[in-house]
Amino acid sequence: MRIGFGSDNHSGAHPEILQALMRASEGHQPSYGTDEISERTSAIFEKHFGSGVKAFFVFNGTAANVLSLDALLKPYQAVLCSSMSHLQNDECGAPERWTGAKLIPVSTPNGKLTVDDIKANLIRRGDQHFSQLAVVSLTQPTEVGTIYSVNELKDITSFAHANGLLVHMDGARLVNAAAALGVSLSAITKDAGVDVLSLGGTKNGLVFGEAVLFFDPKFAQDFKYRRKQAMQLPSKTRFIAAQFETFLGTDLWLSNARHANALAKELAEGLKQRPYVTVTQECQANAVFVRIPKEWVSRLRERYFFYVWDEKTFECRLMTTFDTTKETVNGFLKALDELNRERQ
Amino acid sequence: MRIGFGSDNHSGAHPEILQALMRASEGHQPSYGTDEISERTSAIFEKHFGSGVKAFFVFNGTAANVLSLDALLKPYQAVLCSSMSHLQNDECGAPERWTGAKLIPVSTPNGKLTVDDIKANLIRRGDQHFSQLAVVSLTQPTEVGTIYSVNELKDITSFAHANGLLVHMDGARLVNAAAALGVSLSAITKDAGVDVLSLGGTKNGLVFGEAVLFFDPKFAQDFKYRRKQAMQLPSKTRFIAAQFETFLGTDLWLSNARHANALAKELAEGLKQRPYVTVTQECQANAVFVRIPKEWVSRLRERYFFYVWDEKTFECRLMTTFDTTKETVNGFLKALDELNRERQ
Amino acid sequence: MRIGFGSDNHSGAHPEILQALMRASEGHQPSYGTDEISERTSAIFEKHFGSGVKAFFVFNGTAANVLSLDALLKPYQAVLCSSMSHLQNDECGAPERWTGAKLIPVSTPNGKLTVDDIKANLIRRGDQHFSQLAVVSLTQPTEVGTIYSVNELKDITSFAHANGLLVHMDGARLVNAAAALGVSLSAITKDAGVDVLSLGGTKNGLVFGEAVLFFDPKFAQDFKYRRKQAMQLPSKTRFIAAQFETFLGTDLWLSNARHANALAKELAEGLKQRPYVTVTQECQANAVFVRIPKEWVSRLRERYFFYVWDEKTFECRLMTTFDTTKETVNGFLKALDELNRERQ
Amino acid sequence: MRIGFGSDNHSGAHPEILQALMRASEGHQPSYGTDEISERTSAIFEKHFGSGVKAFFVFNGTAANVLSLDALLKPYQAVLCSSMSHLQNDECGAPERWTGAKLIPVSTPNGKLTVDDIKANLIRRGDQHFSQLAVVSLTQPTEVGTIYSVNELKDITSFAHANGLLVHMDGARLVNAAAALGVSLSAITKDAGVDVLSLGGTKNGLVFGEAVLFFDPKFAQDFKYRRKQAMQLPSKTRFIAAQFETFLGTDLWLSNARHANALAKELAEGLKQRPYVTVTQECQANAVFVRIPKEWVSRLRERYFFYVWDEKTFECRLMTTFDTTKETVNGFLKALDELNRERQ
Repeated sequence: MRIGFGSDNHSGAHPEILQALMRASEGHQPSYGTDEISERTSAIFEKHFGSGVKAFFVFNGTAANVLSLDALLKPYQAVLCSSMSHLQNDECGAPERWTGAKLIPVSTPNGKLTVDDIKANLIRRGDQHFSQLAVVSLTQPTEVGTIYSVNELKDITSFAHANGLLVHMDGARLVNAAAALGVSLSAITKDAGVDVLSLGGTKNGLVFGEAVLFFDPKFAQDFKYRRKQAMQLPSKTRFIAAQFETFLGTDLWLSNARHANALAKELAEGLKQRPYVTVTQECQANAVFVRIPKEWVSRLRERYFFYVWDEKTFECRLMTTFDTTKETVNGFLKALDELNRERQ
Repeated sequence: MRIGFGSDNHSGAHPEILQALMRASEGHQPSYGTDEISERTSAIFEKHFGSGVKAFFVFNGTAANVLSLDALLKPYQAVLCSSMSHLQNDECGAPERWTGAKLIPVSTPNGKLTVDDIKANLIRRGDQHFSQLAVVSLTQPTEVGTIYSVNELKDITSFAHANGLLVHMDGARLVNAAAALGVSLSAITKDAGVDVLSLGGTKNGLVFGEAVLFFDPKFAQDFKYRRKQAMQLPSKTRFIAAQFETFLGTDLWLSNARHANALAKELAEGLKQRPYVTVTQECQANAVFVRIPKEWVSRLRERYFFYVWDEKTFECRLMTTFDTTKETVNGFLKALDELNRERQ
Repeated sequence: MRIGFGSDNHSGAHPEILQALMRASEGHQPSYGTDEISERTSAIFEKHFGSGVKAFFVFNGTAANVLSLDALLKPYQAVLCSSMSHLQNDECGAPERWTGAKLIPVSTPNGKLTVDDIKANLIRRGDQHFSQLAVVSLTQPTEVGTIYSVNELKDITSFAHANGLLVHMDGARLVNAAAALGVSLSAITKDAGVDVLSLGGTKNGLVFGEAVLFFDPKFAQDFKYRRKQAMQLPSKTRFIAAQFETFLGTDLWLSNARHANALAKELAEGLKQRPYVTVTQECQANAVFVRIPKEWVSRLRERYFFYVWDEKTFECRLMTTFDTTKETVNGFLKALDELNRERQ
Repeated sequence: MRIGFGSDNHSGAHPEILQALMRASEGHQPSYGTDEISERTSAIFEKHFGSGVKAFFVFNGTAANVLSLDALLKPYQAVLCSSMSHLQNDECGAPERWTGAKLIPVSTPNGKLTVDDIKANLIRRGDQHFSQLAVVSLTQPTEVGTIYSVNELKDITSFAHANGLLVHMDGARLVNAAAALGVSLSAITKDAGVDVLSLGGTKNGLVFGEAVLFFDPKFAQDFKYRRKQAMQLPSKTRFIAAQFETFLGTDLWLSNARHANALAKELAEGLKQRPYVTVTQECQANAVFVRIPKEWVSRLRERYFFYVWDEKTFECRLMTTFDTTKETVNGFLKALDELNRERQ
């Protein structure tokens, strides 16, 4: 398939990641997380997030999100999330099924929850008939490519903690947010008051593998059992660990993220200069949201695959990734121009 | 870590599998199972198991087992399994938690269930207070390295089907059983009446990845939703598919399995010639069970890692794998001889 | 506590119901649903709902709703309901926890779902990432005391069935709807295309006990196991059966419902004549919704207990029941008048 | 149905219990546990069990057991119980389904667990692959009518607590054990180290209703939500409370239990004098277990209903209850004699 803008998981793996897998394959290693590479990776997580961090590998993003919540929640509680969130729309009910808890989706224009959203849902505290709000889940960057600033995050986590709530972050593309803001991974997670983080790898050049990070070790105490019972304990753990060792132990996370972000910006700028399409969300990370004339969509998609986000308005989502090229961006813009000329 | 007999998941990945990953990484591919490699793999499964087979990739063996059962079971039903089974002992309650159903463990001298075991548990049919037996789960080869013959399997599946029960097979090491019996993979699964199969890859040289195979498509109808909700839908599916393409599309499965089996046999023969240890199970696949003098165990384990299966009798489990060498087998036997000489 | 308008479960039991319990207590009877009274009750359900109906007793309304849905749903599916529904707001997440499925709450001005609401949520069919809509749940009368007409129900059930959906009705107060419409219980359930009904008893003068009714026996096939596993199989079933025998085997259901409805109407009419309060919902059954000046609420509640439905607008809910008296209604209106005079 | 020995839930309700229901029905009361009778009942529980006790009403014995365990357990943990226990055999998998945890049934000759049974199952502590033993569940009296002495209980609870385990007691017939031992209800529960108690009412003359008692309030902290989500919050709670007020607030519990126990003893003594039947368990409470010649069973059951406990040995279970009469006991013995004469 030709390179397009379908999703950051339409790309393969970064060559350095594949090399890491090759190296990791040598010799025998104990399974289930006690191998040498996993041990080395712990130190890398500590370098990024400080000495208290507890990191656990899982297979995919659904699991990272669901098990993060499972560690924070009781089944009679509830999670506040954006109605645009992956958690609400794209997990086929996995969060509810596994944790037993309720999701409370909140309508958000740009995918970002606010303190007011939380306030409005801090209701019926202590009422046994009502699922008690316990966790706020933020996606950083959001599903529409916008980014919470450090201050926005701190406002939310302060308010949450002051009201007995915990904060989860879905960071499937966290590295894109950190790169865009020019801050460390810790600055928008641990240092901003987040309690547990789903840290994505697959969408940034890994073959597979995500990590769940607890910034307070108390939430991690029994996580090894929770992960195993949830069918998420990898046997040859070294193969996830080795990928993260390269991803976070070098600057690969940053260069991959910067590359994808830069090309998204370029694409967005190009689109903004074309009056016959409308960019609908601020392009802050590696996603561009744009309304495209309905009659162009199928022809464009044949050449550069992408998803229609809203079937009614033909708002489309264009994702860039570590292997997106300038040629692809320019080719897409040129294709738009051609379609525009044809119609005149 | 030095190569030992710890587990077949202590080995890395087979070089051909790693090459398959490298090749698979080229270009963009749709995610979630609609890539070209996944399509090609379907044909390979059909070549092995006939045209009706429906195969789904999952991440690990726990998931393959649990989701296989989930597709066959209602939560008020029960599963008969050996008390030695991985299902009962090593899944941290995942089968019960996810399916809601009950496991009924049956004591078996050699890990193999019999028709009589099933008969004895076909009780209280229709009694609303009692979890209704619905599925028989067999492990092939068993957790103690023994193998069901084709006839034994057929006796069990016929009896089960005649009594309204379905049959699941945990085939984490199925290739070892087929290689040992000198039959096709289908002969001991589909052709022997098995309804759903957990087909292992990780323990035979893959980086990660297992498959759930339904021989009757009716059980597969809604499995895509069940898998997703169970957090087991891989995003870059091509990377599992590519491994299975190489594993089952060539003779790699057979050569890996034959190699491991042959070295296990060699090890077992060597042990039987030594009167100071006792081989406790027939060595039919790639496991050797042997009682070793208690005082030797820790010194042996330092040089050749293995697990003590029974802390009371010091029955130990020695697993061979695709990368076990004759040197390791001979070295282990020599180490035993040295320990024996020392004590004299 | 003085009789007020708090809830129809603030009342005790109707004297005839208590007499039924006394009679039922004689002698020994088999437990778990095989007693003589339960058998007689089956005939009564058939008289109301036709010969195909299968009725099962459970303890309370939460269970009736959750187990009704459980019989219709797979865990990867979803239920459409009003955002005002008891299911969504007052079950502490029981539906999600037990069925594993997702609730999709829809904003409704008067608690009533429409065909358009269903249409708008018939999306992403076949998409494995998205909980598949499978059941529409209607409350009759709604939580705000409005009633679906027979035609409205038929429109919804026809559309639902034509699109592969099933229809559940929460009939905790079904008798009030039937009495108000002047139709049989079957006319607004089975005959209107409903698939499964939660039929309430407790809110209409029973000590405890609700029934789950399946109009197509295929949904009832394994319900006895589902109920038992859900902790809802009553041991001395005769005591629920006896109450329903009196409730539905005589005209008690109708006279209780008519009485409550009539007094609600009287109350609503009285309120409408008073310009200093605003009736906010059409009073069709035994509930009156009315905005009351904020400063009057606590003093009124001391004398006639009721719930504030909306803490912001001081919309209040006044429920009448089988034992509400004219004196109470008139007393409440008089108390309003007094408060009004005071303020002038 | 004629009075027999089928089960203590084949009896109706005690007349005093019915009177309590009648009285409780007067006037309006808030629902869901905040009524006056519920408040009075709290004081009665404290009189029996000391001031720290927290009692919650649920509908039936299944729920009392499952929710007791739910309050003590994490889903990755396990519960040790007798293989004869109701928990293991007669809940249709409810404990596993609701708590997510695993039951470990232990073979016991007389239904009683021992310290050695616990020791033998304190294995693989800290092993993430293995459901971690966390709770020991005792039935008092056991399902075969035997009774743990106070010292036996203390040995078990001391050992359990010293090893980080908690102790649940299934006291569906607890009053029979206390009456038989001549001790208070607290002596064999709280004072003996039990952590949470399922206290039965239905089997001792109630219409319906059981209580879950926590002797350490910390386990009760969030139980109101757990109960509601488990569909076990009664709306007209006063009707359960009123029954317990009479049952435990007077000597009714004791006189009912003594009566049933005395008649069981009389029956057992009569049976022991008859050499053609064999009493198989010590009769300590209100159950008699006896092997009866196979060919007599169906004729006997027509006149005095009872259950065959073991279909192979024709060991039968005869339960006495608060309304068993001397005439029934003597009639049964006479019927045996007649069958014996016939055969000679």
